[in-house]
Amino acid sequence: MNAIPHPLSVIWQNDHLQLLDQRKLPTETVYMELQTPESVWDAIYTLAVRGAPAIGIAAAYGLYLGIRQVESMDQFWRELKRVADYLNSARPTAVNLSWALNRVQEKVMSHQSQSLEQLKEIVLAEAKLIHQEDETVCRKIGENLLTFMQDGMGILTHCNAGGLATAAYGTALAPIYLAKQKGWNLKVFADETRPVLQGARLTAYELQQADIDVTLICDNMAGVVMKQGWVQAVIVGTDRVAANGDVCNKIGTYSVAVLAKEHGIPVYVAAPTSSIDLNTATGDEIPIEERAPEEITAGFGKQTAPTEIKVFNPAFDVTPAKYITAIVTENGVIRAPFANGLKEHVHKNKDN
Amino acid sequence: MNAIPHPLSVIWQNDHLQLLDQRKLPTETVYMELQTPESVWDAIYTLAVRGAPAIGIAAAYGLYLGIRQVESMDQFWRELKRVADYLNSARPTAVNLSWALNRVQEKVMSHQSQSLEQLKEIVLAEAKLIHQEDETVCRKIGENLLTFMQDGMGILTHCNAGGLATAAYGTALAPIYLAKQKGWNLKVFADETRPVLQGARLTAYELQQADIDVTLICDNMAGVVMKQGWVQAVIVGTDRVAANGDVCNKIGTYSVAVLAKEHGIPVYVAAPTSSIDLNTATGDEIPIEERAPEEITAGFGKQTAPTEIKVFNPAFDVTPAKYITAIVTENGVIRAPFANGLKEHVHKNKDN
Repeated sequence: MNAIPHPLSVIWQNDHLQLLDQRKLPTETVYMELQTPESVWDAIYTLAVRGAPAIGIAAAYGLYLGIRQVESMDQFWRELKRVADYLNSARPTAVNLSWALNRVQEKVMSHQSQSLEQLKEIVLAEAKLIHQEDETVCRKIGENLLTFMQDGMGILTHCNAGGLATAAYGTALAPIYLAKQKGWNLKVFADETRPVLQGARLTAYELQQADIDVTLICDNMAGVVMKQGWVQAVIVGTDRVAANGDVCNKIGTYSVAVLAKEHGIPVYVAAPTSSIDLNTATGDEIPIEERAPEEITAGFGKQTAPTEIKVFNPAFDVTPAKYITAIVTENGVIRAPFANGLKEHVHKNKDN
Repeated sequence: MNAIPHPLSVIWQNDHLQLLDQRKLPTETVYMELQTPESVWDAIYTLAVRGAPAIGIAAAYGLYLGIRQVESMDQFWRELKRVADYLNSARPTAVNLSWALNRVQEKVMSHQSQSLEQLKEIVLAEAKLIHQEDETVCRKIGENLLTFMQDGMGILTHCNAGGLATAAYGTALAPIYLAKQKGWNLKVFADETRPVLQGARLTAYELQQADIDVTLICDNMAGVVMKQGWVQAVIVGTDRVAANGDVCNKIGTYSVAVLAKEHGIPVYVAAPTSSIDLNTATGDEIPIEERAPEEITAGFGKQTAPTEIKVFNPAFDVTPAKYITAIVTENGVIRAPFANGLKEHVHKNKDN
């Protein structure tokens, strides 16, 4: 198998955790060596590690770092609970963080009869499994998306649904890395993604590191790049897919989708099956977080707008299903009509 | 008549020139007091004054500052030529700069029989006339655009086609100021306009100063703002209108126009008749300047993208005529089919 072509966000290194310090991106590639749950808490809290799957993986390893030196059964169970609660407090709103910590605890609790050393091994093994499974999910999303690609194509992506946010490959960027492994040359356009510039700071960085042909553009240049005929597919990630196929993703995705429609360019959404939420009927039900005005008025250490100017700063937007060509998960491809397709897809893959 | 509600970029103050120092925007409102052509050259060169009409007006006054103290006829004609060439060298590519300087020289050359003091007065009077005419053109564009507006409407604009770039009112912002003078409350959304942020730094500033309801958004939020139903008209300026109605304007205008079409929102282009170029058949003939990558990668005083990342940074784009609802000049309104309308419009107003 080919090596993963981009820098990894999370590495388990024999007896300790390595995390790519994403606060130093895009100018410096520095790995932090973590030996304690306190340092993992800190890394999560200060956004040295970011992206829902990567945070969950880091926390699972952090839990192991917190229990590996306990000397009694009593202490094991006490510390397991304490360290898990502690790590969860680093970002209480991150669903994946509590999901990963709960999963490790449940696993070890179903093996209560084992010895102390065996229990410790089970914790580490479960962390590694979560890590490995995320890589597999991403690679499968990439393989399924790759069926729509061909050598030489131009791809436009928005925000960062990349390897840095996951165990490897990312979601929207996965087919690009797999294409690279096949020896294809895709030409990627990365929207800088104001206001937080995930496209400029993260997507451009990881694709450049992987030696992929990437061109950084401002968000307002996507239309012109499409009009020039340079884009044959849009691929984006998602935070949540509603039951009707409406897609919630980083602010600006909706504009990209409308522009793609106008230019006859397909829009693919890279979505782990876990991001499909059948309990949310439509995108209208998804609450859109508004973030601090300073992200727009003074985002990079310098004031670029008048003091006290009124700002509208939604973190996400909803792209109605009609703009989506296909939703692609690790389990397959869903096309319109999405309502039936998503329901079947989720139920089929739950039963497996 | 109502007072102009926004800060003026250029003021002739009895015996000297005042320029709003636009380098200090949006955080400080500071006027420079200029007594010499050297200080005017400097202001043009360092972008303290910007916007084609404002530069032309400032240069015309600068020419007067350069000749007002000459003591002989010989010296007058020598200095007139020398100072005009000198001021023109501050931004040799600015068409309006050489246009204004030539206009003043031609005017005074047609009055060679006058006395030295009279000639000096003619220079100043012509500068004032250029200044006044620009204000009138802008106000008339605003009056013509105002026929499409009504109290309470939401307006989205891109870049800065505002009062700061002209004698007063601006072009795209003119109807907004006139509406303010009528007591209407328009609700303006200003795209920040990456990479140079003219929307955040200039449009948001001048509308805020005029006490107009303005909300700053990132370029990639325009689609969502339209989808919310908050925008009833898009108004933009233009650098050049081709004979077929294609409109060249700041990068991002094309995306805004496509989004407006998708949402059934009319797009109005505020265009002085002088910006209609019948010698350019279509937008395809307009060369698009590409600017330095650093505007995108390090635009906020801090590096925000990887070193040596490839960048596409076009300064302008072309919006095809089919996305334009109307082109509005100081002389009237042109609607599709634009080819005939623009030709008639230019010829009719040349004959007047």
